Amino acid sequence: MFAVDLNCDLGESFGNYKCGLDEEVIPFISSANVACGFHASDPVVMAKTVALAKEQGVRVGAHPGYPDLVGFGRRNLAASPAEVKAMVQYQIGALKAFCTAQGIKLQHVKPHGAMYNMAGKDEKLATAIAEAIKEVDPELILLAPSSSKMMGAAKAVGLRVAKEVFADRAYEEDGSLVARSKPGAMITDEEEAVARVIKMIKEGTVTAITGKEIPVEANSVCVHGDGPKALAFVQKIRKALEAENIRIASIEEVIGK
Amino acid sequence: MFAVDLNCDLGESFGNYKCGLDEEVIPFISSANVACGFHASDPVVMAKTVALAKEQGVRVGAHPGYPDLVGFGRRNLAASPAEVKAMVQYQIGALKAFCTAQGIKLQHVKPHGAMYNMAGKDEKLATAIAEAIKEVDPELILLAPSSSKMMGAAKAVGLRVAKEVFADRAYEEDGSLVARSKPGAMITDEEEAVARVIKMIKEGTVTAITGKEIPVEANSVCVHGDGPKALAFVQKIRKALEAENIRIASIEEVIGK
Amino acid sequence: MFAVDLNCDLGESFGNYKCGLDEEVIPFISSANVACGFHASDPVVMAKTVALAKEQGVRVGAHPGYPDLVGFGRRNLAASPAEVKAMVQYQIGALKAFCTAQGIKLQHVKPHGAMYNMAGKDEKLATAIAEAIKEVDPELILLAPSSSKMMGAAKAVGLRVAKEVFADRAYEEDGSLVARSKPGAMITDEEEAVARVIKMIKEGTVTAITGKEIPVEANSVCVHGDGPKALAFVQKIRKALEAENIRIASIEEVIGK
Amino acid sequence: MFAVDLNCDLGESFGNYKCGLDEEVIPFISSANVACGFHASDPVVMAKTVALAKEQGVRVGAHPGYPDLVGFGRRNLAASPAEVKAMVQYQIGALKAFCTAQGIKLQHVKPHGAMYNMAGKDEKLATAIAEAIKEVDPELILLAPSSSKMMGAAKAVGLRVAKEVFADRAYEEDGSLVARSKPGAMITDEEEAVARVIKMIKEGTVTAITGKEIPVEANSVCVHGDGPKALAFVQKIRKALEAENIRIASIEEVIGK
Repeated sequence: MFAVDLNCDLGESFGNYKCGLDEEVIPFISSANVACGFHASDPVVMAKTVALAKEQGVRVGAHPGYPDLVGFGRRNLAASPAEVKAMVQYQIGALKAFCTAQGIKLQHVKPHGAMYNMAGKDEKLATAIAEAIKEVDPELILLAPSSSKMMGAAKAVGLRVAKEVFADRAYEEDGSLVARSKPGAMITDEEEAVARVIKMIKEGTVTAITGKEIPVEANSVCVHGDGPKALAFVQKIRKALEAENIRIASIEEVIGK
Repeated sequence: MFAVDLNCDLGESFGNYKCGLDEEVIPFISSANVACGFHASDPVVMAKTVALAKEQGVRVGAHPGYPDLVGFGRRNLAASPAEVKAMVQYQIGALKAFCTAQGIKLQHVKPHGAMYNMAGKDEKLATAIAEAIKEVDPELILLAPSSSKMMGAAKAVGLRVAKEVFADRAYEEDGSLVARSKPGAMITDEEEAVARVIKMIKEGTVTAITGKEIPVEANSVCVHGDGPKALAFVQKIRKALEAENIRIASIEEVIGK
Repeated sequence: MFAVDLNCDLGESFGNYKCGLDEEVIPFISSANVACGFHASDPVVMAKTVALAKEQGVRVGAHPGYPDLVGFGRRNLAASPAEVKAMVQYQIGALKAFCTAQGIKLQHVKPHGAMYNMAGKDEKLATAIAEAIKEVDPELILLAPSSSKMMGAAKAVGLRVAKEVFADRAYEEDGSLVARSKPGAMITDEEEAVARVIKMIKEGTVTAITGKEIPVEANSVCVHGDGPKALAFVQKIRKALEAENIRIASIEEVIGK
Repeated sequence: MFAVDLNCDLGESFGNYKCGLDEEVIPFISSANVACGFHASDPVVMAKTVALAKEQGVRVGAHPGYPDLVGFGRRNLAASPAEVKAMVQYQIGALKAFCTAQGIKLQHVKPHGAMYNMAGKDEKLATAIAEAIKEVDPELILLAPSSSKMMGAAKAVGLRVAKEVFADRAYEEDGSLVARSKPGAMITDEEEAVARVIKMIKEGTVTAITGKEIPVEANSVCVHGDGPKALAFVQKIRKALEAENIRIASIEEVIGK
């Protein structure tokens, strides 16, 4: 039987600022990437988000980002590998404290935004992140695209990995995402997006933007909860997966111990 | 044989800003209170400070503070107990990640500055801090003055405590520190300061500002490393303690398991 | 003919975080208190908010707050008068740059949240704020409650003032606001709130929580734009004022040159 | 008679953190680039720095940087031109408030660190900065290298410019600075550095790293005050300039009205 994880960025509110439909989206996902206070969130929001995930039986992952709250961690920042390593350890530790306090285990780490993109292409950053995770908790799973430099870095340091795919993004022939600036980068047709995800899971392939079939591994599908439309899509994709007899399971269950 | 811990705030540099004589003072102390990025420090400084403490065989404690970098955590902030609890868990977790990554154990927690002062007098804040620590790691020791509300709160939640005394501060009859604004609050004569500390350790008493002898427990003496004069005093007090056959030991050794 | 200003806090969004219904509420007000990046907002939001106010013919005021983004400037902070003076000058200057760049004049200053409350009762803070404003631009008007310490401080330094009243808050006999923690502090009946405002403007009195009629001066009414209900109330109060032949005008027009 | 300005970055302390030898270096310079709270400084430091400059008769310029305190504004950040424009206007306005409050005029703007480097090569950023300055105060002078994209942008928007040279840096044939990573990038011999500066001022040429003589314009020489050695060099260069009958004057005097 096929199984896949549905992951979503959660806990991105900050102080007086509410962001995302956490309560609404969480019943439909299996893993939450919880912001750690650098690009979004604060300690109170983190405590609440971990409590919400625990209550809903959703696994928790750390979602470390650049220290750029005003840019939401989406702007490239020329931080050194040593700086990135330290900021990742800091953020994992901070979130793990809330997990420990509430009696749950931290499952995975998924770098956020610009850090995710930069480490996807830069081996030194990728290695810094993999080492950071391994040293803090060797049981943690790194969630990243299969074509990312983070995959190799994780394997090199002996870290478990889970391969992430995107329902709403087109792929290049090398398995990387088509840059958002290029035409066709986004899959806007929801039916098509769902069909692509099912094919990625069941057949292990996706049609690249060039039309060529390429291999892809899908341990976890990234979904969004940042608006009514995103929420409706999460519900749709979950329903479609269930209709296809694909089991929704945590990352740890999908990749096996 | 008498034993006492010497604790000092370390790792207060930030980015390009250097603060304190960490390398110089660390050979003379037994426990380091390491800033956690809210009132001072950053992830790179934390990683380096933990490495320095490990190398020197000095035990590490978390030194959480208010999120007030420009005020160095010294300004009272009307944060709620729930906010304080979350910010303490966050900061302990962040520092603990560096300890875990470097293979050492986190020994204690000492709130910083305004948080230390406010929680010393406010039972709700004291309880929030004690609960925060207990939930994240029940082995941690809370370092606070014996007259502080934190003592009672720690005992109520079943947390180990260590009693801190100050060489350079006068005491009221109730065991609290004389407010800095009052005349005589600071013990400026170094010989007198050293003699007071030795008496606190050996006899368990101190002469209050009123002249009355009051009982005091001294598990750990707070020393400073923020200038050449402070550093010289640390060396002097250490030498005097050794001359009195008082063993300098970690907090954990002093209070026993 | 009676005239009154309607002021509302605007431009409180931050980076990716949206806050408030600025576009919806601005057609109904005459003065905007624009956040300056300490308790809320960022440079891009400030530029946009000034542009919006200019386009809608609404006057702009600076809304400086404590440097406490996560607490939205609502938590008391023990900053010194010298610190408050400097942070107010900084924030006024920052906002004024956007006004100058877009060819409009900065009209007034209204401290935000905890700073507004603390300076209302603390003469030294009130004086620091009044001096800060006067030195940066002696034409600026300080917007504050008539019972506030800021009134006296502004007069002492020769600064123009406008007296602010609240539709939704009960008053003590001395003209101060009833603390939110006390029963009856909030006027929840909208009709009553509107009637009170009209009476404050036309008769210069308000019924204190004790039942006694007390004098009050109303140059400007504070309204809110932070939700659909708040927005509906702004429309209702504006309509009611117009029905009573009370002219809605800027602070500068209301108090006269 | 030849004249040149000596500019130095000042006011880079932050809260409890002291940085730079402001009091020591200021008697030897003619213009201060004052940090504006994003990459360094805070409102209290800015107020004090402006007061110090006023007292010493040194002209004040704004030194806006990226919002990256921990990185001291030295890390490239992928901020958009619109974001950079807004953050520059914000910072100029903030500093100008202190100048106005203390009765002095803001003379110039010199972008800091990564912003200076990125805008030197990116026309869109350069234009954003030039427009930002022009809109806030068309009298301000942009201080930048003659080979920088900022020069062209300033001229395009009608902004006055001053050309900055570096005593301690080697030049490429196109007038750009040799990257720090390349051998020979730094001029470490102090006599040579002084001789180069005098030649740049008197002859309008400098020997590029290739050995070729290239034209260069020197309105202002950048000096440093961040250590005893830097301070000694400032004194040496000032003395040498005076010995050569080169007048030390403010930027405004050097470039003429």
